[in-house]
Amino acid sequence: MRDLVDIGMGRTARRAFGLDDIEIVPSRRTRSSKDVSTAWQIDAYRFDIPLITHPSDAVVSPRTAVAVGELGGLGVLNAEGLWARHSDPEEVLFRLVTALEDGAEPTELVRLLQEAHAEPVRVDLLTEAIKQIRDSGVTVAVRVSPQHAAELTPDLLAAGVEVLVVQGTIISAEHVAREADDEPLNLKQFIANLDIPVIAGGVHDYRTAMHLMRTGAAGVIVGYGYCAGVTTTDAALGIGVPMATAIVDAAAARRDYLDETGGRYVHVIADGGVHTSGDIAKSIACGADAVMLGAPLAVAGEAPGQGLYWTASAAHPSLPRSRVLPVTDDVEVDLRTLLFGPATDPDGLVNLFGALRRAMAKTGYSDVKEFQKVGLTVRA
Amino acid sequence: MRDLVDIGMGRTARRAFGLDDIEIVPSRRTRSSKDVSTAWQIDAYRFDIPLITHPSDAVVSPRTAVAVGELGGLGVLNAEGLWARHSDPEEVLFRLVTALEDGAEPTELVRLLQEAHAEPVRVDLLTEAIKQIRDSGVTVAVRVSPQHAAELTPDLLAAGVEVLVVQGTIISAEHVAREADDEPLNLKQFIANLDIPVIAGGVHDYRTAMHLMRTGAAGVIVGYGYCAGVTTTDAALGIGVPMATAIVDAAAARRDYLDETGGRYVHVIADGGVHTSGDIAKSIACGADAVMLGAPLAVAGEAPGQGLYWTASAAHPSLPRSRVLPVTDDVEVDLRTLLFGPATDPDGLVNLFGALRRAMAKTGYSDVKEFQKVGLTVRA
Amino acid sequence: MRDLVDIGMGRTARRAFGLDDIEIVPSRRTRSSKDVSTAWQIDAYRFDIPLITHPSDAVVSPRTAVAVGELGGLGVLNAEGLWARHSDPEEVLFRLVTALEDGAEPTELVRLLQEAHAEPVRVDLLTEAIKQIRDSGVTVAVRVSPQHAAELTPDLLAAGVEVLVVQGTIISAEHVAREADDEPLNLKQFIANLDIPVIAGGVHDYRTAMHLMRTGAAGVIVGYGYCAGVTTTDAALGIGVPMATAIVDAAAARRDYLDETGGRYVHVIADGGVHTSGDIAKSIACGADAVMLGAPLAVAGEAPGQGLYWTASAAHPSLPRSRVLPVTDDVEVDLRTLLFGPATDPDGLVNLFGALRRAMAKTGYSDVKEFQKVGLTVRA
Amino acid sequence: MRDLVDIGMGRTARRAFGLDDIEIVPSRRTRSSKDVSTAWQIDAYRFDIPLITHPSDAVVSPRTAVAVGELGGLGVLNAEGLWARHSDPEEVLFRLVTALEDGAEPTELVRLLQEAHAEPVRVDLLTEAIKQIRDSGVTVAVRVSPQHAAELTPDLLAAGVEVLVVQGTIISAEHVAREADDEPLNLKQFIANLDIPVIAGGVHDYRTAMHLMRTGAAGVIVGYGYCAGVTTTDAALGIGVPMATAIVDAAAARRDYLDETGGRYVHVIADGGVHTSGDIAKSIACGADAVMLGAPLAVAGEAPGQGLYWTASAAHPSLPRSRVLPVTDDVEVDLRTLLFGPATDPDGLVNLFGALRRAMAKTGYSDVKEFQKVGLTVRA
Repeated sequence: MRDLVDIGMGRTARRAFGLDDIEIVPSRRTRSSKDVSTAWQIDAYRFDIPLITHPSDAVVSPRTAVAVGELGGLGVLNAEGLWARHSDPEEVLFRLVTALEDGAEPTELVRLLQEAHAEPVRVDLLTEAIKQIRDSGVTVAVRVSPQHAAELTPDLLAAGVEVLVVQGTIISAEHVAREADDEPLNLKQFIANLDIPVIAGGVHDYRTAMHLMRTGAAGVIVGYGYCAGVTTTDAALGIGVPMATAIVDAAAARRDYLDETGGRYVHVIADGGVHTSGDIAKSIACGADAVMLGAPLAVAGEAPGQGLYWTASAAHPSLPRSRVLPVTDDVEVDLRTLLFGPATDPDGLVNLFGALRRAMAKTGYSDVKEFQKVGLTVRA
Repeated sequence: MRDLVDIGMGRTARRAFGLDDIEIVPSRRTRSSKDVSTAWQIDAYRFDIPLITHPSDAVVSPRTAVAVGELGGLGVLNAEGLWARHSDPEEVLFRLVTALEDGAEPTELVRLLQEAHAEPVRVDLLTEAIKQIRDSGVTVAVRVSPQHAAELTPDLLAAGVEVLVVQGTIISAEHVAREADDEPLNLKQFIANLDIPVIAGGVHDYRTAMHLMRTGAAGVIVGYGYCAGVTTTDAALGIGVPMATAIVDAAAARRDYLDETGGRYVHVIADGGVHTSGDIAKSIACGADAVMLGAPLAVAGEAPGQGLYWTASAAHPSLPRSRVLPVTDDVEVDLRTLLFGPATDPDGLVNLFGALRRAMAKTGYSDVKEFQKVGLTVRA
Repeated sequence: MRDLVDIGMGRTARRAFGLDDIEIVPSRRTRSSKDVSTAWQIDAYRFDIPLITHPSDAVVSPRTAVAVGELGGLGVLNAEGLWARHSDPEEVLFRLVTALEDGAEPTELVRLLQEAHAEPVRVDLLTEAIKQIRDSGVTVAVRVSPQHAAELTPDLLAAGVEVLVVQGTIISAEHVAREADDEPLNLKQFIANLDIPVIAGGVHDYRTAMHLMRTGAAGVIVGYGYCAGVTTTDAALGIGVPMATAIVDAAAARRDYLDETGGRYVHVIADGGVHTSGDIAKSIACGADAVMLGAPLAVAGEAPGQGLYWTASAAHPSLPRSRVLPVTDDVEVDLRTLLFGPATDPDGLVNLFGALRRAMAKTGYSDVKEFQKVGLTVRA
Repeated sequence: MRDLVDIGMGRTARRAFGLDDIEIVPSRRTRSSKDVSTAWQIDAYRFDIPLITHPSDAVVSPRTAVAVGELGGLGVLNAEGLWARHSDPEEVLFRLVTALEDGAEPTELVRLLQEAHAEPVRVDLLTEAIKQIRDSGVTVAVRVSPQHAAELTPDLLAAGVEVLVVQGTIISAEHVAREADDEPLNLKQFIANLDIPVIAGGVHDYRTAMHLMRTGAAGVIVGYGYCAGVTTTDAALGIGVPMATAIVDAAAARRDYLDETGGRYVHVIADGGVHTSGDIAKSIACGADAVMLGAPLAVAGEAPGQGLYWTASAAHPSLPRSRVLPVTDDVEVDLRTLLFGPATDPDGLVNLFGALRRAMAKTGYSDVKEFQKVGLTVRA
């Protein structure tokens, strides 16, 4: 735990870095893009690209989950979002978009989301949504919160879920409870009783990552889906997670846990700070096995949010920590082009995984695991 | 006194950090918000939330002092402000707001304030204002300047003040005087002769904090109410106080003084750099026992400034060091919602202390004192 | 390899600096501008000013290549750009400019460039363009990509090329190929078979610079033509090259290679981060022997782009990494004035090499090689 | 010479700090403003405030030189500016102001200045201008360039100049000349032959400051009058002088020279980076004995530039390094108020030396020399 800074007398803080603070530096032989593989495998599931969707209703409907799966990634539906609470979620989204066009204040959009999430989660709607994904043949993944994981999981399994994502903005392997009616999730026991792989998070430091790996999770999510301009956890809670450092630390936990267990490899999935294809490359360069993408997918024509983006915490009933914002860009593309090009946009917003492949080729690496060692610089 | 930087040959400066430079990092077990206490006690007075109001007329009238007290904080009326000088202070405020609406230049607003403060302090008005607070049953606190503390205090005590705040932008335990007619306040003697607790400040370093603690003060204020865009002490005097470092240093003084006295705990109150609920959390994370809030309260519907904010130094007759500015935001809330939510604003401007509670829960701490140990990061 | 920073547990990054991070500091005797020489020589070719043009079609046509040569620099025509693919390249440029005036989206301009580059390279057009330069008597230089160097070079030699620039955004001395049909350029063998000097790049680190020097190149290009606001390699690939550090490292390779060979001096040419005459001075101060200029030349009345600028990567068919942007400035000058003044513009955009001469005089240096030792500061 | 940073392999740069990077931190007893003296003395001349005017025609006419002198500072007329070249300089300034109002391009204003400076310097005009200052009884100071010092000084002495300022943007004690017709100023000999005190500069480092002190100068100017947004030396030449470090270094030279000579105290005058009263305080805190002010005086109603500001280098015939800009502010004050208040402006632009006095009082210092030791912080 080096690099502690005295911020005053007797109090230290750790120096930490975001993806914006670092850059990849070519320092080896180059390679042809054709010789590069971006494939990634977790448990029995193999994917052509290291992409998991952030479970925001703005980007994942059952339909887009299928589309992402068919294109080689893993779509994750939010089991506690609009598709689980409304028989016509498109109508809710239409209201949001219309309100924006009518010049609604930012807080009004948040209020609409809060209202829409006041409706209860309905198992019938969830089951139907999951069926839609399962029928397509792609890997079926949904996200539950730690609070509702125990309650919802049996129905999710019955509906055919293959990968379970247990995700809160901040999670811990051991939640402290003092009152009797507060029954926190025992993640270790929960995972032990399941037959399907669990991805859990978000974590923000080495220790919690390590604890979470020891619960038996197949993958650990680093970050809480930070998106510049959209998420406001820093303003609301003072909590921030410089992603480069957070990913590097989780990768260190992965290495130590691998040693401790004599070979169990837990995947590190970066969820936050990724706005461009360059950020995807940097995340992997820091040690991520895959990235969770939210806002970058919101420009796709298929995205249910129709260009709007927010994260689940926007709907918190008393303390929203996400804005509802139009993705400010003139890009209009289908999902396939967004992921694999060709692009006419030079800003790293299109051809997201074609660009990753090219970054790997230009720096001479042939697979994702190897690319985790590429050289980095930081600005002074 | 580590972390000295050579800024040239033979001259060092100390590296210092603001609240914006640091972030809280979750690194432990989480906890339920229900199990968290934000309570705070100074002398015999206990408060549900660690909130003291900055004594700006823009946010504290006798009425809002009562409202803050009823909601669990401590409202502090300025004994040398508009309520002490004008029988109809609302009329003065109305002129300010009207001038702004009529497009007055920034300096014109300052001039209006200077003019309004040219009127003398009247004991009858002060007594009446204090009575209004006392009658409500909440703790009665007023602020006096070091210059007028000796002169005004007898009348303030007679009127029923329970906590005295002796506050200048910069204060010292021992003022140096050369001329005979300059009779500075001897704070130690002044406090010794009083039966009520005194909170004094602002201080900006370890040594002055230590000296002030030794005068017998119950609480020491760190900072001078810095508010980005409003206060201009840096531009006018070259003086600046990076708040994270200043709070940490004052907390170090508290610790050393506690040891030196074998147990007298002097409270550290952070006054400056707090714009959002996240900043409140960071202030406490740095070691503050409570925060003094000015501008963040100016958005409340009850605020006398009707959305304008300034600090007392705006009214200085020859060297104003504060602008008079509308709090640029579309937020419109009552004080209760401002402090405890629910919020539809995601920017950390509403639900200020509900957010503090949540930040503590998410990082696994159950009270304010414990939360002073939470992990911090600094950006490189 | 000092100055490594821990960006997390077990992962370091190197601190790196851009030209914007440094400043030249006068610390010696001054000298008269008249006593300063900015001359530069590579192989048998001597130039009055250390200027090579970046091979962007926005700044180099056969006509401007001649003009640059006549003014003492080296113009480099792109052998794979518009002049090699279109019999009327001016018409293509006219379409670009017109589209911009008609309010085309940024991506539309990229699309137009992509379309124009979909046409094949024609040897007859290239030969004609080169002839035009050769007939003027100035040094004839063209740029080829590593991919097409082998194929195009015989025709280029036949046409009269005297200096060959083999340039990709990122190059390596040894390209790794796995598939049989991927036949990368063996630069060492390629150069050995040529009778004319080769300038190759871009490189971004010491090791690649060293490897490239060992291929027999007469000059090594550092950087990929980074231009703030125009190139987007960082956004698209996550790859960035802080130029001050990159130039310093390449100069270190030059020094070590000089020692290793007992006297072969390979020139270091900085290509990127140069926006003003001050940046030219800084590039040389870091160790460059010459600078490659693109955007700064785009304001010249003679520039084919008529005020627009882009780099070759804007035309990449699937992953463009350059915008097509108007050079936002009210400057309107002819090339001679741009290079040698007089200027009425105080922003370092005009009198580019007159300013270099003056910077050298003010710091007391009399030639480019000596000026590589001038004192530098970095902001904290 | 500590605090060297490796900016690449085998090349270091020195960390340097601007006035914006530092802040004064109160850490002692406070003091009453009445007990503070801002007086300053150089040679036989004593001044109430440590103010010298930057010799820009935008702020110094014979009339304002008198006004500044009467208010306790030292006005310096430019002996090579408009008052020396035009019988009606006001008419030239009127043309500038009118051109701006008519929407002239920035380069057009520079062109007008260049044109006005193409006229020769006339001794009769100079003599008349100096007479005007001398007749008022204030100390008479003029500035000459190193190039014309030898030629102009006899006439200046004859006209009654009492303090001579020899100032170029960059000066050296020993200019290197190679051609016979280049006869540089031998400053040591020049000063030895004069009976009046000479202030010389600008210097930017310890060594040149030391050399200049050894020429016999009474005062050394640090900096070249850097003014954010106006001067463009960094853009044009790559040369920059972080002022906090430059002042500290010159103060170190003063100390060492004092020791070397057994008691000769050479004054350090800071010329650059001062935009507010806070910057004046910081300059002295870094070790300056006085400050040279340009732009901050341009808002005075008496300023000949009528709100416009530029430095002498704007008029350079081929390489201007200063813009001609309106001082963007709504401040309108007379010179006395500008220097001593009262202010209704809270931004540190008015009451410049009243603010200095207050900063000294708040940090407990009673004179300028002592205040050079006040505590400083730097942002990380």
